[in-house]
Amino acid sequence: WLARTLQRMHPADAADALEALSFDTFSEAVELLGGELPADILIELRDSYREEAVEVLPDAAVASALDELDSDDATTILEDLEDDRRERILEDLAPIDRAQLERGLSYEEESAGRLMQTEFVAAPEYWTVGHAIDHARDIGEELPEVFYELYVIDPGHRLIGIVQLATLLRTARDVQLSDIMKDPLSSLKPDMDQEEVAFQFRKYSLAAAPVTDEGGRLVGMITVDDMVDVMQEENAEDLLSLLNVTSADGADTVWDTVKARAPWLGVNLFTAFIASAIISLFEGAIAQVVALAVLMPVVAALGGNAGSQGLAVAVRAIAERQLDGDAARRAILREVLSGFVNGLIFAIGVGVISLVWFRDIELALVIATAMLATFVWAGLSGILVPLGLKRLGADPAVASSVFVLTLTDVMAFFSFLGLASIVLL
Amino acid sequence: WLARTLQRMHPADAADALEALSFDTFSEAVELLGGELPADILIELRDSYREEAVEVLPDAAVASALDELDSDDATTILEDLEDDRRERILEDLAPIDRAQLERGLSYEEESAGRLMQTEFVAAPEYWTVGHAIDHARDIGEELPEVFYELYVIDPGHRLIGIVQLATLLRTARDVQLSDIMKDPLSSLKPDMDQEEVAFQFRKYSLAAAPVTDEGGRLVGMITVDDMVDVMQEENAEDLLSLLNVTSADGADTVWDTVKARAPWLGVNLFTAFIASAIISLFEGAIAQVVALAVLMPVVAALGGNAGSQGLAVAVRAIAERQLDGDAARRAILREVLSGFVNGLIFAIGVGVISLVWFRDIELALVIATAMLATFVWAGLSGILVPLGLKRLGADPAVASSVFVLTLTDVMAFFSFLGLASIVLL
Ligand SMILES: [Mg+2]
Ligand SMILES: [Mg+2]
Ligand SMILES: [Mg+2]
Ligand SMILES: [Mg+2]
Ligand SMILES: [Mg+2]
Ligand SMILES: [Mg+2]
Ligand SMILES: [Mg+2]
Ligand SMILES: [Mg+2]
Ligand SMILES: [Mg+2]
Ligand SMILES: [Mg+2]
Ligand SMILES: [Mg+2]
Ligand SMILES: [Mg+2]
Ligand SMILES: [Mg+2]
Repeated sequence: WLARTLQRMHPADAADALEALSFDTFSEAVELLGGELPADILIELRDSYREEAVEVLPDAAVASALDELDSDDATTILEDLEDDRRERILEDLAPIDRAQLERGLSYEEESAGRLMQTEFVAAPEYWTVGHAIDHARDIGEELPEVFYELYVIDPGHRLIGIVQLATLLRTARDVQLSDIMKDPLSSLKPDMDQEEVAFQFRKYSLAAAPVTDEGGRLVGMITVDDMVDVMQEENAEDLLSLLNVTSADGADTVWDTVKARAPWLGVNLFTAFIASAIISLFEGAIAQVVALAVLMPVVAALGGNAGSQGLAVAVRAIAERQLDGDAARRAILREVLSGFVNGLIFAIGVGVISLVWFRDIELALVIATAMLATFVWAGLSGILVPLGLKRLGADPAVASSVFVLTLTDVMAFFSFLGLASIVLL
Repeated sequence: WLARTLQRMHPADAADALEALSFDTFSEAVELLGGELPADILIELRDSYREEAVEVLPDAAVASALDELDSDDATTILEDLEDDRRERILEDLAPIDRAQLERGLSYEEESAGRLMQTEFVAAPEYWTVGHAIDHARDIGEELPEVFYELYVIDPGHRLIGIVQLATLLRTARDVQLSDIMKDPLSSLKPDMDQEEVAFQFRKYSLAAAPVTDEGGRLVGMITVDDMVDVMQEENAEDLLSLLNVTSADGADTVWDTVKARAPWLGVNLFTAFIASAIISLFEGAIAQVVALAVLMPVVAALGGNAGSQGLAVAVRAIAERQLDGDAARRAILREVLSGFVNGLIFAIGVGVISLVWFRDIELALVIATAMLATFVWAGLSGILVPLGLKRLGADPAVASSVFVLTLTDVMAFFSFLGLASIVLL
């Protein structure tokens, strides 16, 4: 009954329905279904649910799913398997499929080679539109379910052009493919990083794109639906990284959650004590003027906020490739200047409030000056830290917020308490 | 010369080249080009550059761009125009184009109606594959450059099915369209929010989708390249909102930057003084035990960090629709429990460091207890604030981080200083 209900739904909806179950119930349901869980539902499941399903399913069911799925999706399933089980299951597949899947696995994770499917439609350049259509009708069911373009190749299987299906459709039967083909917009290689591939798709508004090897031979096709997933993944990664989480999934257990967050909290524990150490340099001043202890978190909070604002903008701009060369220099200048302007505004704001509260003009001037210095410093840190990480080849979203907040904290406490010691004591 | 060079490049590359110019040089270049700036380059420019170009271009050039572009892109250009100029330019267009564009503008911003193009390909259900292909060849150039599917309609122009071009291609000429059409996967209406539309595209792996009105009549088509832009936009919005920036663009001036950041800094100024007010309640305690001033930022920093981690995870999960009903309840429980576990870990960590540093067991126990309480509270705030905003119909990413950090600050200072007053004095 469950199998029939699932089969009547769209695979994406069926997957959603299964994901609505608690993790344990889901696991039982998959065991019950066994080989009757359609492969196209399996592949629509979220990572954590899919991994569980693959673990619970019998070898035969996994093997038949591998057989049914497009090669990119089959590779995803294979990745989920433990080494010895993968070996065992691969051995039972037809030798051609097996070789193809093993090649897919040989590409690095998050590369174009992993994301491409080896199912695509190619035709020789001397074919006419009529040829191509007749051939498609002949082989009918063997073609991929959905494809958007046809690749034109030479006798050495090298890609020489692309014909959109829309173009094929409106062209007379006797026109040669080589007369209507267009140059490929992107030149994707199997070892290209998925972020670069996604960027090309977005830039050139692609629905699909061919992948060629070093010799220019056509080896696969990437489709936009998989790129959409990559973009969401990379965006989620940036957002989580900026807020110090290493990974997150709806099915995470308490233990997963602790593991994903404790490491950065640990780093933060260390950096927080750096700030404490700076404060302790001024214990004497604080003991004499307790207002310093009351006001110092204001400088740190606003400065940290200004720094993360700049950081957020910089990380986005780097992801959109808007911070190369000259643009980076302009952005640094802009951050420093707007740090100065916002610094002035909030120096006045904080100064006035402090004056009204503590009726001490010197204290007000001290906090205003510290505020201004911290804002300019925050502007500088917010852009230089991510740019520096990028130059070092690191991900500008990872670790940068801890850096920036430590830098602004140190500046805030040092400038405020230091100035206060000089001026007030 | 410039015009010729641009024409030889892909519009997306040409737009990138123009965007590499400083804003002022760009503006001069566009003035120089005038009507020779191709419309497909204009539409590839970033918002800020496109708006500047539209402002600088003569009316005639704008009108011819409107004529050339697909209706969704033409609407984007129209949005950039001031009211009276828009009127003037619309009046010069052919009445049909004009009516169509005015209808496009009548839909709300960020709705499916704005994003759809009115150029699509539809055929009556009684046509055969052969009919459809012959007709496409006849009208040839009038068809959209690229399309991925054909919509099947009844005599009342109501959408009854979709035929993928790949399906059309592999089917024999005499088969009727109604025999090979599929049900539409998504049911997009013109007033649907763009985030919902993008979600459907991602869920069902769509390259294009039809939009129908309340009567089920086909009124437009949305393509995946525009959805990819929407997803990037919505993701950028969430990331920037979480870090308190209202908007950002590579071409922002210092003044734009100040305007985009000062408002949230202003709110933060207010909330920071709430924290100060709490600290000031315990001035007496701090004057007696200065170590309290040294250690209190540690509790606030770690607690705030734990709160934003939970917030980041919750905002992502809400965007992915993984936090409905039961899942929300499970997530709240998980956040509280993992807040407790991380709280224990870092209570011990902070406690031990404080003990070694200040050699005061009571102080160490106080900070450890405060740490644990703040972590549990942070876990609760990090999930309840975004869920609450969502329930109120607000964007869970906007304002939530200021809320969460204020809540954790208040808890951190209150629990640490409060306990200290009771235990240590
Ligand atoms: Mg799903
Ligand atoms: Mg895949
Ligand atoms: Mg990467
Ligand atoms: Mg585009
Ligand atoms: Mg795929
Ligand atoms: Mg990545
Ligand atoms: Mg990334
Ligand atoms: Mg561009
Ligand atoms: Mg919206
Ligand atoms: Mg998908
Ligand atoms: Mg469009
Ligand atoms: Mg929005
Ligand atoms: Mg949004």
